[in-house]
Amino acid sequence: MKIYGDSKSGNCLKVKWTADFLGRSYEWIEIDILQGESRTAAYLAINPAGQVPTVILDDGRPLSQSNAIITYLAEGSALIPADAYDRARMTEWMYWEQYSHEPYVAVARFHVKYLGKPVAELEPRLLERGGAALQRMEDGLAGQPFLVGGGVTLADVALVAYTRLAHEGGFSLDLYPAVKAWVARVEAALKIT
Amino acid sequence: MKIYGDSKSGNCLKVKWTADFLGRSYEWIEIDILQGESRTAAYLAINPAGQVPTVILDDGRPLSQSNAIITYLAEGSALIPADAYDRARMTEWMYWEQYSHEPYVAVARFHVKYLGKPVAELEPRLLERGGAALQRMEDGLAGQPFLVGGGVTLADVALVAYTRLAHEGGFSLDLYPAVKAWVARVEAALKIT
Repeated sequence: MKIYGDSKSGNCLKVKWTADFLGRSYEWIEIDILQGESRTAAYLAINPAGQVPTVILDDGRPLSQSNAIITYLAEGSALIPADAYDRARMTEWMYWEQYSHEPYVAVARFHVKYLGKPVAELEPRLLERGGAALQRMEDGLAGQPFLVGGGVTLADVALVAYTRLAHEGGFSLDLYPAVKAWVARVEAALKIT
Repeated sequence: MKIYGDSKSGNCLKVKWTADFLGRSYEWIEIDILQGESRTAAYLAINPAGQVPTVILDDGRPLSQSNAIITYLAEGSALIPADAYDRARMTEWMYWEQYSHEPYVAVARFHVKYLGKPVAELEPRLLERGGAALQRMEDGLAGQPFLVGGGVTLADVALVAYTRLAHEGGFSLDLYPAVKAWVARVEAALKIT
């Protein structure tokens, strides 16, 4: 398997962590989005949406969208709950991540860390909605070690990716102690360094 | 099962169409988001994110996120391909829908149809990215009847919801003939009127 990804991108790292956790071998091909490498004709032939990550499976077929890729890779593993309702709650968190968390928490980080914008000049909406997303996680983690059930699942993989880097976009995890403790727990479970 | 949804919302209708297609009985509880009904204390107790739709399953447990709900409801049915790669491509389209289609195509429609904004005053980004999403579908549908494989799947359910109403946000499906023909095909397959 080949993983085309930008190692600055949490979406790409989700795929790496999942493959590493499952002991799947792969070749990592670095695509620097800031250098326009996700918009070349060669890359668009692999992923017409021009987004990273994309994987090329061993049989040569492509697959994109980080959460779709990790779901495919983890099928039948402990990262996906066997119980249908738990599996549905995991999926619920993963869609919520892409719709209500990543567009604020990750985008704020991208503006600050990669485009050099001061936090004070960010669109207020990014900080407001990103903060609301972190609070939603804080509430969801009350009294439980992981987002769904007793062990680490793809919901944790998907959400830890940008949550652990939220401070780079101007958020303080000190305001969300359950989230902060969960980040450390997920990093340990996935061996993220 | 109870479905809490706003019948103006494509995200909510996805759940209705899937339940209808599968012959699942349910009670529909209308939540008018324009009247703030998704932000009441009673609704937030069901869905802390304050988003529609949410379903309450027969055993009383809640589930949110339209694409997570329809995945749960359709497990084991013909709406989800048996082949693992086809299933992954379906999921890829569904995440793409929430990240790269709905935030433009559905949001443009919301501003025009429900907030009364003239199309000419929409943020240019909405029309530009919405148009790019429709073009991406046009390319993906070249020479095939549905988004994945030979039959209707959840990818079609998820993407038809706002694509069929794109004209209400200032897009013309006449520019995307394969998409236009696909909309009619999916409406027929799902018996959407």
